[in-house]
Amino acid sequence: MKIALVGPGAMGLLFGGYLSQKHDVTLIGKDAEIMDQIEKEGVRIQETDGREQVYRPHATAEPDKLEAADLVLLFVKAGDSRKALESVKHLIGEGTFLMTLQNGAGHEKLLTQYAPQERVIIGTTNQGSYKLDAISVCHSGLGDTFLGAVSGSAGHFASVAEAFQESGISCSLSDQVKGLIWNKLMINASSSVLSGILQMPQGYIVGDEAAWSMARKLIREICAVATADGYPFDAEEQIERIQGHLQDAPGGYTSIYADLKAGRRTEVSVINGAVVEDGHRLGIPVPTHEFIVEMVHAMEGRN
Amino acid sequence: MKIALVGPGAMGLLFGGYLSQKHDVTLIGKDAEIMDQIEKEGVRIQETDGREQVYRPHATAEPDKLEAADLVLLFVKAGDSRKALESVKHLIGEGTFLMTLQNGAGHEKLLTQYAPQERVIIGTTNQGSYKLDAISVCHSGLGDTFLGAVSGSAGHFASVAEAFQESGISCSLSDQVKGLIWNKLMINASSSVLSGILQMPQGYIVGDEAAWSMARKLIREICAVATADGYPFDAEEQIERIQGHLQDAPGGYTSIYADLKAGRRTEVSVINGAVVEDGHRLGIPVPTHEFIVEMVHAMEGRN
Repeated sequence: MKIALVGPGAMGLLFGGYLSQKHDVTLIGKDAEIMDQIEKEGVRIQETDGREQVYRPHATAEPDKLEAADLVLLFVKAGDSRKALESVKHLIGEGTFLMTLQNGAGHEKLLTQYAPQERVIIGTTNQGSYKLDAISVCHSGLGDTFLGAVSGSAGHFASVAEAFQESGISCSLSDQVKGLIWNKLMINASSSVLSGILQMPQGYIVGDEAAWSMARKLIREICAVATADGYPFDAEEQIERIQGHLQDAPGGYTSIYADLKAGRRTEVSVINGAVVEDGHRLGIPVPTHEFIVEMVHAMEGRN
Repeated sequence: MKIALVGPGAMGLLFGGYLSQKHDVTLIGKDAEIMDQIEKEGVRIQETDGREQVYRPHATAEPDKLEAADLVLLFVKAGDSRKALESVKHLIGEGTFLMTLQNGAGHEKLLTQYAPQERVIIGTTNQGSYKLDAISVCHSGLGDTFLGAVSGSAGHFASVAEAFQESGISCSLSDQVKGLIWNKLMINASSSVLSGILQMPQGYIVGDEAAWSMARKLIREICAVATADGYPFDAEEQIERIQGHLQDAPGGYTSIYADLKAGRRTEVSVINGAVVEDGHRLGIPVPTHEFIVEMVHAMEGRN
């Protein structure tokens, strides 16, 4: 399968490296020097068992020279999605699947502007990875990856799921992929974003009475929106699940935490912002998520 | 008039100093050393024209030894009100007025537990003052002081207003004092608290799109609650007024800013917390103020 993967971040390098074992993968990034280095030296992955392996995808900063792919896989930060899609739209041919495994939700709204809905694949992954340097990542957590359709059956994406499986990436098709995305958003749009705003580890959120009260409000609003969206979630069950998760891993830090700490723009618009958009579309009040989005933007604006 | 003034902070020293020119004032504080120093050396006020004057109220850390006063004036931080009232409740006799000029709103709920409602005076002041050292303040801004009743006419507090006037403190009685308190809360419970959370000067709030959107939400909720409380405020008018104020004084910092910066407990519970309490009492939704109170408490809890 001919795969164009846009966004050589921690997850892009991980998936690009693994997929290159069995497929014709080209990583696309903005930094010509780094892309040259990857083309020459490959991608280094420190595996979950500690071994270091080198994988050999192609890499380029000039996607203009490429031709249509079977799969265009988007891994850029959400704020860069439109620009990235513009730069690779000539790679999206008549038979090309356009896929995102980006963090957050609602990416399909943009992707369906670049490919017909029946060839847009949305998904969520529980793989974990962080960068060691520009061409090296640590594979920090194994987990399932789920692919599905914007609406309807995921069945005709079987070839894509197979490509992942062949490359050692545990991958399933799901007709409930949006439910899985909601499920992941539950924690990212509650305790994770609060951990960023408060600049405290995730465990603080469940341990501090006021912070945990805010998190519960956020979870309740997400559950109401997801339920109205056709993916029923019981708020109290979710609160209990997330409480357990945070108590088990109190030291965790999140990407919003890191972004705000570094004064970078965050992905809040596809995390809490996705809840706000769907809340408005479905007529469910989401005052707390609206406020969180503005709070994070006001924090980003300080730099 | 025999006046017991509890809380020798920046405002307590200012009012205590001035009132001592014509009245028998005793400042009550917790720190015996400082109270001794005031008793011996007086209170130093750097006046608005730059001159330094010394005033000679009495001062003690042992209110047990005092007798009932004509006026007990509360100037402690809101979180210390109950403890302070407990320590001076023997000074509240049959004819004693019990008065607060503390920041925020809702103090009457506590004060009416220590004196009958008809002898409780609430008020608001636009005087400005900050501490130079334990016994010295800079009188940083002149402004009116308004006194009134918890409900009904302020008329029977004329002797108290006169005592202030005689001491050079511009002071009026108002039957709309709660409206004036709402008016002051408008800015304290919107841009001031956001300035604290974001740790940015007040001007940032009006200049940043997301921050100003949050401020407008907070102002709209305050106006709805104040209006339901019988003090009609037009939200758009208030937004315009506060916008002008912030644009005129963009460099301003607030007590919540200073408290959060220093890791101290803030007065949020009598600022946004007062809006929340009245919102609940009056059946007006105040989700944004609820969230702000929790956010500030979660920030306080970090230390």
